Amino acid sequence: MQNQQEDKVKIYAMGGVGEIGNNMTVIEINEDIFIIDAGMMHPKDEMFGVDTVIPDITHLEQKRDRIKAIFLTHAHSEHIGGIPYLIKKIKAPIYGTTLTLAFLEQMLREMKSNKKVKTYTIDPDKEVWIGSNRVSFFRTNHSIPDSVGLAFHTSQGAIVHTGDFKFDYTPVDGVKFDLSKLTRIGDEGVLCLLSDSKNAELPGHTPSESTVGERIEDVFYFAEGRVITALYASNLHRIQQVVNAAVQTKRKVALDNRYLERLVGIATKLGYLHVPKHTFISLDKIDKRPDREIAIISTGPEGDPMSPLIKIANHSHKKLQPKDTDIFIYASSASPGDEKDVTKAIDSLMRIGVQVVYGKDVHVSGHASEEDLKLMLELVRPKYLIPIHGEFRMLKVHMDIAASTGLPLHHVFLLDKGDVVEFTKGEARETEKVPAGQVLVDGLGVGDVGNIVLRDRRLLAEDGTLIVVVTLGRRSKAILSGPEIITRGFVYVRESEELIEDANQIVTEVLSKALNEKVSEWSSLKNGIRDALGRYLYDKTKRRPMILPIIMEI
Amino acid sequence: MQNQQEDKVKIYAMGGVGEIGNNMTVIEINEDIFIIDAGMMHPKDEMFGVDTVIPDITHLEQKRDRIKAIFLTHAHSEHIGGIPYLIKKIKAPIYGTTLTLAFLEQMLREMKSNKKVKTYTIDPDKEVWIGSNRVSFFRTNHSIPDSVGLAFHTSQGAIVHTGDFKFDYTPVDGVKFDLSKLTRIGDEGVLCLLSDSKNAELPGHTPSESTVGERIEDVFYFAEGRVITALYASNLHRIQQVVNAAVQTKRKVALDNRYLERLVGIATKLGYLHVPKHTFISLDKIDKRPDREIAIISTGPEGDPMSPLIKIANHSHKKLQPKDTDIFIYASSASPGDEKDVTKAIDSLMRIGVQVVYGKDVHVSGHASEEDLKLMLELVRPKYLIPIHGEFRMLKVHMDIAASTGLPLHHVFLLDKGDVVEFTKGEARETEKVPAGQVLVDGLGVGDVGNIVLRDRRLLAEDGTLIVVVTLGRRSKAILSGPEIITRGFVYVRESEELIEDANQIVTEVLSKALNEKVSEWSSLKNGIRDALGRYLYDKTKRRPMILPIIMEI
Repeated sequence: MQNQQEDKVKIYAMGGVGEIGNNMTVIEINEDIFIIDAGMMHPKDEMFGVDTVIPDITHLEQKRDRIKAIFLTHAHSEHIGGIPYLIKKIKAPIYGTTLTLAFLEQMLREMKSNKKVKTYTIDPDKEVWIGSNRVSFFRTNHSIPDSVGLAFHTSQGAIVHTGDFKFDYTPVDGVKFDLSKLTRIGDEGVLCLLSDSKNAELPGHTPSESTVGERIEDVFYFAEGRVITALYASNLHRIQQVVNAAVQTKRKVALDNRYLERLVGIATKLGYLHVPKHTFISLDKIDKRPDREIAIISTGPEGDPMSPLIKIANHSHKKLQPKDTDIFIYASSASPGDEKDVTKAIDSLMRIGVQVVYGKDVHVSGHASEEDLKLMLELVRPKYLIPIHGEFRMLKVHMDIAASTGLPLHHVFLLDKGDVVEFTKGEARETEKVPAGQVLVDGLGVGDVGNIVLRDRRLLAEDGTLIVVVTLGRRSKAILSGPEIITRGFVYVRESEELIEDANQIVTEVLSKALNEKVSEWSSLKNGIRDALGRYLYDKTKRRPMILPIIMEI
Repeated sequence: MQNQQEDKVKIYAMGGVGEIGNNMTVIEINEDIFIIDAGMMHPKDEMFGVDTVIPDITHLEQKRDRIKAIFLTHAHSEHIGGIPYLIKKIKAPIYGTTLTLAFLEQMLREMKSNKKVKTYTIDPDKEVWIGSNRVSFFRTNHSIPDSVGLAFHTSQGAIVHTGDFKFDYTPVDGVKFDLSKLTRIGDEGVLCLLSDSKNAELPGHTPSESTVGERIEDVFYFAEGRVITALYASNLHRIQQVVNAAVQTKRKVALDNRYLERLVGIATKLGYLHVPKHTFISLDKIDKRPDREIAIISTGPEGDPMSPLIKIANHSHKKLQPKDTDIFIYASSASPGDEKDVTKAIDSLMRIGVQVVYGKDVHVSGHASEEDLKLMLELVRPKYLIPIHGEFRMLKVHMDIAASTGLPLHHVFLLDKGDVVEFTKGEARETEKVPAGQVLVDGLGVGDVGNIVLRDRRLLAEDGTLIVVVTLGRRSKAILSGPEIITRGFVYVRESEELIEDANQIVTEVLSKALNEKVSEWSSLKNGIRDALGRYLYDKTKRRPMILPIIMEI
């Protein structure tokens, strides 16, 4: 029997450990490689001008032929946003549930991706065999419908990956976490659990999504004007609850933008959203009805709740001007780094008299808290735990939680991107480290914005630039034209004429001296200009613009 | 009797309402004007390269001769950081308590301010008369010692300004909030209370500073290696508690930088800090003792706790390398907008094994919470309330709190900067609006960085710049040199040679065509270059660098 030979198992993360987003886990079973999720991440502040960050998959490209499948746990961009880039390099079938694949296809259409991908729909109640590998699934709860976890059944035991999850005993769509299936997988013996850590720092149990619906309903009953709800477009559970509240209070619902309309359209068609006929109206038509019959669901061009909040607060939303009779529900939490902008916008709305409802009453997380993580460990009873999906801090707290339930500390692996855990005879150890990291995407450029470009953008952002151009005669060694000085982002030129004139004078002096001394090395001349000007400008302004001397030769 | 004539009273804020920082309140009594605090604010993210933000005092400059005094409630930079700029324009004596004036003088020395200012030390137990105006003071509790509130006694009743405050019944320095004095002022009849709103959104009572000391002591007893505490340099109460914990656990204390050393020196000399002899050692000498005998107090060059956290976490602190036996206490909260950087740094420290203690156990606020605000209202019993020191949201919550205690809503004024409240016969109404706003300071430039400069910095930060230079013959209308293309922050040039060559080609074509057509209007030629290049570059890269065509004429 071939099963007598032990499966060789390796696990590593290409992203999603030590960071939020960029989720990508790799499982190698013998010669076969499986990728679970391929996410993206929003750029950090210091990544000036970068649009998206994705995992560096150079290592996987080298193993391209061994990759048998890509599994998607759910349709959030932190889990599928890397797919358009991945499929340019790696050809493997993609497995996802109905909604996940539908949203993936919509994303690929929007990005005008012309790659053909083979997809298979996951039925969570059925297993799939890929080569000699058996993979089973279990339904989870999360802030998007149709999310799953999965299990790879190896001869050393199962490898269980939770995806993002919470336990919601009163889910909005009635689709419950398949605890029974998960328990059965646990009964069969689990070698290693990879489990969501994003909310490990929160005590207790993450509340049900339906608690948000109750509060939204209260607001709708109470509101005498329009109710505008800003939320993540992918949170269909919450959209359903807003729709329900609107229907109950006899309001029509207008959707803020095309992106939202398309997602809602897909979800409705597939049966993930239930909207009575004639509920939706066009945003252009809301003024034709009394305000108290209007509800608006708002989201940004990429489905985020922050951009409509800011646009409406700044009166820069094309179709929606705030009124002092409006109630604005910010049904989301501010992501780290966004708090300032969110509170500023809420402030502006309140100033014009809009009632703003925000905070934990109208938002619950889609991720498991401390007690939920303990329940997960209890049901799965893994021999080893690899905390995933979180900053290092969160992974560490998850480790401590596991230890408190009795898992030995050395059975928990806190991984950095690329760290490989290898399993032999049911024992795990960290063996090697494969190359891993992140790739910055700016416009069409994938990975071409590196440290030098970012450093220059940072310098330019700080004090702007000052450009000095001069035309010199190659033979005459005389100044034929210039020096001309152009600045951007340094000083307001009309108020700084004297400064610019003095700068001009300094350049002319440096040039004349150099030309008299027959300097012919332009680079040293440029350095001379840069030094003299830099000193002068810093002395006068305490600023350090990027100085770019350009010498034209004739 | 001259008192039979009613005092004319006006109140307005030049800053600190609708924003955190920039605090500056103005009280006009008849012809006399009093300024309370002159703060600064840290620039927001979108203010690229700006160092400091201060209130626009153009309006006060016009009334310069009527300004009789500047009162400082305490020494935080949000309250005194605007003084160096204010005293360049306005000559008036400054009143502050001993520590406040000492810190102010230190700040002026550091900024090399050569303005002479006349200062008067406030003794909170004594009143002062300025002209025919009587001003009295009351001691408060805050996150810096020697803070006061003040009362202007007018014929219409007192105007009470709380400064920043909390009620601490177990203050570290034993100096209690003078509740009895405040009550007496209340008994005499208060026309209007201006009260700190920063923590209005927090329920309950702000805990005593000494609760932090208890937790710090626990950590010190438990620690087997060094203990590094990052805190605000001005929080002398907390420094005292760290010193106490160090002395009790037989540790020497090293101070991180000169700035901290100077503040601690001043505070010790004036008796605000009590440090046993031989407690301090130089940071250079900490390696000569066992780690468990070392405590380090850390702060940034401007006294903030975040920069040492980040420097130590990134191994870029010149004198302090983290060890896996260290315990790091982050005895501060992350300011809005800083959460990302703070959590990232904590993450990095934990990765290398440093134990990090952070959160509400080792930090309490210096501002009054909801129940404290109610107590303030109860003791002062004002006829009118003007919530100050907070974003609009916080001012509004403060209003609701006041209403819950029985103050009529129309007796609360939510002010925007410059809104004037005028009092006649004990009745208040908003009358006019004086010019008010904010001034950006960048290096030596005060107010010269405006929208155009900031817009350019933002554009440069996004996609960098591309400069095209060409030398044309004035008469020959021929290209004599160039086009030469230089980019910064756009693409990595070595990997984009083809792109740059094509761009060069496009410029040459536009030029040749224009020269053939005898175009002599350089500005339209520049626009032509900008358009053609912009289209091409966006098409190829989906980026929009700032394109700067420069034409040199010979």
